[in-house]
Amino acid sequence: MKKNIAVCLSPALLNLYEIEQSIVVVIDVLRATSSITYGIENGAKAIIPVMEVEECLNYAKDGFLLAAERNGEVVSGFDFGNSPFSYSKEKVANKTIVLTTTNGTKSLRMAQERAHTVVIGSFLNLDALCNWLKSQNKDVLLLCSGWKDKFNLEDTLFAGAVAENLKNDFEFSDDACVAAQDMYVLAKDDLRGYLRKSSHNARLEKLNIENDVVFCLQTNICTAIPILNGDKLEALV
Amino acid sequence: MKKNIAVCLSPALLNLYEIEQSIVVVIDVLRATSSITYGIENGAKAIIPVMEVEECLNYAKDGFLLAAERNGEVVSGFDFGNSPFSYSKEKVANKTIVLTTTNGTKSLRMAQERAHTVVIGSFLNLDALCNWLKSQNKDVLLLCSGWKDKFNLEDTLFAGAVAENLKNDFEFSDDACVAAQDMYVLAKDDLRGYLRKSSHNARLEKLNIENDVVFCLQTNICTAIPILNGDKLEALV
Repeated sequence: MKKNIAVCLSPALLNLYEIEQSIVVVIDVLRATSSITYGIENGAKAIIPVMEVEECLNYAKDGFLLAAERNGEVVSGFDFGNSPFSYSKEKVANKTIVLTTTNGTKSLRMAQERAHTVVIGSFLNLDALCNWLKSQNKDVLLLCSGWKDKFNLEDTLFAGAVAENLKNDFEFSDDACVAAQDMYVLAKDDLRGYLRKSSHNARLEKLNIENDVVFCLQTNICTAIPILNGDKLEALV
Repeated sequence: MKKNIAVCLSPALLNLYEIEQSIVVVIDVLRATSSITYGIENGAKAIIPVMEVEECLNYAKDGFLLAAERNGEVVSGFDFGNSPFSYSKEKVANKTIVLTTTNGTKSLRMAQERAHTVVIGSFLNLDALCNWLKSQNKDVLLLCSGWKDKFNLEDTLFAGAVAENLKNDFEFSDDACVAAQDMYVLAKDDLRGYLRKSSHNARLEKLNIENDVVFCLQTNICTAIPILNGDKLEALV
């Protein structure tokens, strides 16, 4: 019998889903989960997601890299935020990074409380992630981090990309999965153009991170799948 | 300056929206808000939405019609549930109906707590509703009732129909509005066919309410706009 796949459009709806036996894929493609994927691909030993900026600071003495983003910007005094360009091989190989972000780390922690397994998804590791999900014989929940608990287009498009990839192997078990897949099919030939329709777009443009956005919309430049082991995201092996 | 329009995809997300100065359109097209529209169109004096089946019973002595639906079925002992065919002129003209439903009455009550104005939307009164919204100079929130707080396709499609109609007169202020509009444009030539993709579809087919579904997807057979005055839905005049 096929396993189920569902899409949770906001962390605020996560309590509606039974995930105790499921793999939860946490999605925050602009930019946390893209940067995490890229960092793990580039040999970071681990990435530790924490909820608060202050928690990040507790790790300073251990020689970890400290990364903090709030409202799209690097928090002052930190090594970096969540731009993928900060997660290059030169910067992160063999390092442990402690990371807090506006949306992504929150949904990671919420998923961790109940899920069987928590992994990280982004366009960068789309095929690797989907192939692995097909091999697991588990129900899957795609958890969109959204923007401050609101629905957003970019995370839903990525959920739709996964749904499209898995449609022959899984049963869609909620309407959000159907909607996400249709939106992805509509947008896939020009993801960047589609996202210009986002209410978010003006905010992104103000942040001057166009290069980051374009980077995060690349597909399959990574094969790493970050998985949560205890408090740490590490490469799935 | 244009007013804003936004779409709330689930009652569980309503707290994210400031609605104190807004018109909230409550949407539960299969079937509560379609039946309410049809009943008011057909001369019902008022429809009183209540949260619990027991509350409904309190009105029995007043000679009101009692309507109660749970999980898609008429609750035993009640005059009727939320099939639009129960809201015909013969049955409801000059009557007051007390109604409780699984999803629609809940979102109505939630909206009422904070909104400036609460009205009812359905495909049946689409154009009348949109024309009135254009005349009001107020921000608009389209509140999808969903299914037990989960996203559903049918309410989102209707929100998209309103967004499509209002796109030149309002600013879209969230991503859900963009997504709903795109889904509607994708589905509009065959709404019934599109809804067969819904996870909900199997449930609807079991209820044997195909005639109700087809009825509720008709556009513009009504001009009535039910509006909440105190505890009662009445015709906007």
